[in-house]
Order: sequence, then structure tokens, then C-alpha cells
Amino acid sequence: MPLSIAVTRERTPGEHRVALVPETARKYRALGATLRMEQSAGTDSHFLDSDYTDVDMVGGIREAYGSAKLILRVTPPSPEEIAALPEGSVLIGLLKPFEDKARLAALNARKITAFALELLPRISRAQSMDALSSQSSCAGYQCGLIAAARCTKFFPMLTTAAGTIRPARVLVIGAGVAGLQAIATCKRLGAMVEAYDVRSAAREQIESLGAKFVDTGVSADGAAGYARDLTAEEKAQQTEKLAKAITLSDVVISTAAIPGKKAPVIITTDMIARMKYGAIIVDMAAESGGNCALTQPGEHVVANDVNIHGPLNLPSRMPTHASELYAKNLYNFISPWIKEGELTFDWSDEVVAGTLMCKDGVTVNQTVKQILGEV
Amino acid sequence: MPLSIAVTRERTPGEHRVALVPETARKYRALGATLRMEQSAGTDSHFLDSDYTDVDMVGGIREAYGSAKLILRVTPPSPEEIAALPEGSVLIGLLKPFEDKARLAALNARKITAFALELLPRISRAQSMDALSSQSSCAGYQCGLIAAARCTKFFPMLTTAAGTIRPARVLVIGAGVAGLQAIATCKRLGAMVEAYDVRSAAREQIESLGAKFVDTGVSADGAAGYARDLTAEEKAQQTEKLAKAITLSDVVISTAAIPGKKAPVIITTDMIARMKYGAIIVDMAAESGGNCALTQPGEHVVANDVNIHGPLNLPSRMPTHASELYAKNLYNFISPWIKEGELTFDWSDEVVAGTLMCKDGVTVNQTVKQILGEV
Repeated sequence: MPLSIAVTRERTPGEHRVALVPETARKYRALGATLRMEQSAGTDSHFLDSDYTDVDMVGGIREAYGSAKLILRVTPPSPEEIAALPEGSVLIGLLKPFEDKARLAALNARKITAFALELLPRISRAQSMDALSSQSSCAGYQCGLIAAARCTKFFPMLTTAAGTIRPARVLVIGAGVAGLQAIATCKRLGAMVEAYDVRSAAREQIESLGAKFVDTGVSADGAAGYARDLTAEEKAQQTEKLAKAITLSDVVISTAAIPGKKAPVIITTDMIARMKYGAIIVDMAAESGGNCALTQPGEHVVANDVNIHGPLNLPSRMPTHASELYAKNLYNFISPWIKEGELTFDWSDEVVAGTLMCKDGVTVNQTVKQILGEV
Repeated sequence: MPLSIAVTRERTPGEHRVALVPETARKYRALGATLRMEQSAGTDSHFLDSDYTDVDMVGGIREAYGSAKLILRVTPPSPEEIAALPEGSVLIGLLKPFEDKARLAALNARKITAFALELLPRISRAQSMDALSSQSSCAGYQCGLIAAARCTKFFPMLTTAAGTIRPARVLVIGAGVAGLQAIATCKRLGAMVEAYDVRSAAREQIESLGAKFVDTGVSADGAAGYARDLTAEEKAQQTEKLAKAITLSDVVISTAAIPGKKAPVIITTDMIARMKYGAIIVDMAAESGGNCALTQPGEHVVANDVNIHGPLNLPSRMPTHASELYAKNLYNFISPWIKEGELTFDWSDEVVAGTLMCKDGVTVNQTVKQILGEV
């Protein structure tokens, strides 16, 4: 019996990505797996059913899942989709592990072995599997484009017969993968870019992209490459220095998110009141509440002639490349464990163990247990 | 009596530009002019009333126009606005001279001296006054940004831990000011750019921006820097070569417009049927009918999974800088004729004579007369 892999169309509203692209389908086949896919699952990413050679195209969720051993997804399954998962199957995706206790209970009830890629250890060996990172690249790039397209000024300096246009001033807050990609995109377009991050290591990365580091004198180096929470005093100092940079900017792109937690509010209403007329805020942290006090997730609000954008699911705006990268992350995670057509995990492997959310009806990840409680 | 200049709020739907910015207001003052402006006229361009120092802010169109000698506008005046123009005053703006016979008759009835900047001779001395050119720069830049923001792929090449992303392929059709700016913007973002123009001189300009020239073997060098109409045979040859480039592209930006005429259809439904799934067309010629057979002006249509955008009034998407450049064009045109606070034109000057549409109740521009008939 070869390993049977199943992929369905993502049903979360606004989700255009797909967990299997034609290129990775060929690679799974080469490892001896069989693939079944729901019709049109790749359409929103602009992959046609006919692009997936050697993949069985079937009519619905239950038909696709059937008795599959391995289920590839982008988003967490809905209750109906969980009901269609074969008992004891292996599920892998961006499963939002800290979000929904009932979902986790339902997965455990069906004894699903679920890998949540959000839990992937951030070690170098796992970089090629890092879906948060690949999707953040897409998100940061999109933020840069949204900012440029909404800005009432040119990003580049322009020398015209009628005079010279000065470049726009962009401030990027948070220099993780997304922030760095936003910086790179705005720099490419010719803007004057400043950037800030509480992690001191970010300075060098920011400067290597040709942007200026905003030095607030506050550092918050935390665990696993993420920032720790700041004290009230540190926040006040950060606020004062950042406020000055914010009020000078034509565009502010904020990307300061802490996984599993509400995003810190960095841009206050008071700062917005002092911003330039017509300035733009693109708040990439909108999904977890926003770095700007006035952000409405998924909306565009105007306050004091400042335009505040809180875009959601940014990678889905460029589904072709986002799916390509994501599908490769999945393949890189799972392919080492496909041996002679069978899935054989080494449960003591750091990457496998770290990413595992639940197995055999039991929640195994400690952070998930801490946040959601015993399931 | 100093020269009195008046500016009102533009009332054309979607128009965010303004004909006077704080910087040019100061310059007119320095020449001894007095300025009156309708309240909030600069708001959509993100200039506050308080930014206009030494400008009288008044409550309505009639209050602003009063007995002004010189009226600065972006768009042509409506019948109501023409009724408020002081008889015998000088009007300057992008007056769409070939569009509306009734408007021209109304201007003549009020004995307006009207300069339509679309008629400006394209000679080097007039470059600093060339509003079509400055606004086309804005339009081309915006087309590049729309294309990037709508594209389902990255524009730049990206080397990630999960693999390499190839750059997007962009084709720009028409390499006038707008097309060149679109090329520059897409190149900045890292795309692979090809471009085509019927004028043979464009090759060098395209290549100087780092883009590849699509050689169709057809040249259509016309008068005044614009392209002439092609013969049926030339069109067939052009079509064949262009079709090949179009089908290979992720993005096509078309900018081939002929002033006063319907835009040529270059991208046929047959070509669209052979394009990549998920490809983008941004048709800058939408305002004059479109270079793409399926373009709907102001709309986004999808055909054969190809997304066809027909954006209108692109400069208005970046009103701060578009207004700055436009207001400078106006100032550069008119300021040489402000002498001791009076407007004194040399009617034999090539730029003055070329741009003049009508005066003392008579239509004087020959092209306008040819297209609209005797008014």
C-alpha cells in the first residue's frame, strides 16, 4: 500500500492558497505516494486541475479524504472537515494551534496526528520547512506594495522638468521576516526607509538593506527569535523616540506580532493626531489586534486625515507564489519521513516533536496546553 | 490693481487634485498677485487651508471667482462653473479641448481666454509646463504599482530557504512618459521587463532603463512625438510578434493612447485566450477606450482567468505629488506673462499661441476646430 495523500479546496473565506502545487505533487509521486485532490482546489492560486498530472481529481471533501493517510492543508479544518478526516490520519498545516479548544478536542476525538507548522522549532535545519517565514515574506512584500499604492506621494525621488520630487519617508516597525521584506520592497521603490525593532540584532539586518535604524535605547531580546514583553518604563522610552519618527513619516508599516498573544499597541491615537496629513499606516498585526490603536482588522479607517489599513491574510493576495513556497515547506517537512511509501516518523526528532500538536487522542504540545488548557 | 488669481475645489467625481499648492501660492504672491481660493480646495490633496498663507479662503465658487482675472483649474469647468467665470477672464487647465462642443461654446459666450494644457507645443522650452507629461509620470508609476499589487506572484527574484522564486515577467506596451515610468517602477521592484513602442526612438529609452525591447519590425514614427496610425499589414505583423510576448507575460501594462482619438486595440480577445492563468492586464488607455478589447473603463473584469484593470484618472491616486507637479506646470506656463502685477501675453509666442484654445468669443486652435467643428 503506497502512502495516500489528500488535499481539499480551502474553504476559509478569502483564502486563495492551496497546500499542493503541481511541482510538489510530482515530488510526492516520485517518493511513491498516491495523491487525491478535490477538483478546483488550485484554481484560486491559478493552478488548473490539468496542471496536476498523476493526481486523482475527485468531487468533494469526503471523496478526497477517503481513507487517506496524510492530509495537507493551509488553514485549520472546520468541524465538517474534521468529521471527514480518516481516523488516525496525519494532518499538517497552519492549524492556528492556540486559537480553538473545540477544534483541538475534535481532532483528538478522531485520534488525528496533527502537526501545526506554527510550532516548528526555529532552528537552522528547519528553515526550509518554515511556513511562518515564507508566508511572512509574502505578507511583508504585500505591505510594502499596499503602502506604495495608497501613498499620495511618489516613493522614489523624481527629477522632472517641473522640479524635483523628494522621496517618501517610510518607517517600518518590527524587523522580522515580514518587516525586512517590507523594508526591501520600499527601498526597491526608492523610498527613504527607517526601521525599528526591539531586538538589538535587527539593527545590522536593517542597515544591511540600506535602511536607517531608529535607536530608542530599548532592547527586548526574547526567546526563539521573538521579542519579549517590555516593562512600562521601557515602553515609555520606546514610545517617545518612536513617536518622533512616526510623526515625520509619510508611511508607517507595523509588523510587531507575538505568536499566540495580542499584538502590542505601539502607534497610539496621540501619535496619529501628530502625523502628517495624508499619511498611511499599514498595520500587518491587524490579525492579532493591531499595532495601531485605531486599526480595524480587514478595514480601512481614516483618522485625522491618516489612512489606517488593517489588511488580513496578506499571503493570499499573491496565492501563486505563496502556495508554491508553502507547498515546498510542507514537502520539506514531511518528505524525510516517507520511506518505502510509508510514513515513519522519528518521534524523538526535535523538529517532529516540536511541531506535533496532538497524537492518539492526546494534546502533546506544552505551550498549546498552557494557552488552551487541558484538552 | 494687482493680478487676482482664483482657484476652486475640483468637483469632477474622483478628482483629488488641486491647481494651487502652498509652494506655488507663495511664488504667485512674490510676483505681486493676490489669491483667492475656495475653502477645502486642497484637502483631498492633503493640503490644509492653513497651509496656504496669504491666500484668501472663501465659501463658494462665485465667491472665489468674483472678479478674478486668472482662473487656475485641473479639470474643465462645468456649465455652472462657466456661468460663474468673470467675463473676459483667463482660464488655464487640462480643459479636454476635443471633448465637448457645448463647453467650448459656453466659454466663448463668456469671452474667456482659455489655455488648454493638452495643446501645449512639445518643444524643449515648454517641458517645464508640460502637464500631460508630469501627470503621465504619475499615471505610469501607478500602473506599475497596480500591476505589482494585483499580481499573484512576486515581482522580484527571491531566494528563500524553501527555494528560489523566479521574477515576474512584465510587458509594457507604449513607451511614452507613462510607459517609461511604468517600466522604471517594475524594474525597481525587480521584475523582468520587456517593452514595445511603434516609435523606433523608444528602443534606446527602453533599453536605458534596463528593459528588453520587443522588436516587431514595425515602426510608426509620427508627428509631435506621438505615433501615427498603422496600416492593416503593419498591424498584422505587429500583432503576431506582440501576441507571442503577451502570452509569455505575467503582467501586461498598456499605455498606447493617441490624443483626441480612440486608443488602438492591441490586446485582442484571441491573445487573452492564450495568456497565462492569473495574468494581469493594466490598461492605462482605458480613458480613451482601452488598448485591450475587453477593458471596461473604471472596472476590473476577469476573462479566461486573466484580470483586466481599466483604471481611470490615475494621477488622482497620488494627489499630493500630482498636484505639486501640476501646479508647478501652471506656474511655469503663466509666470513669464505676469509683469508688474498684470497679465501681458505675447500672442505671437509659440507656446502661448499653441496652447490657446479660444479668446474673445472665438475658437482659435485649428485642431480643436477640425475635431469639434466651427464653434
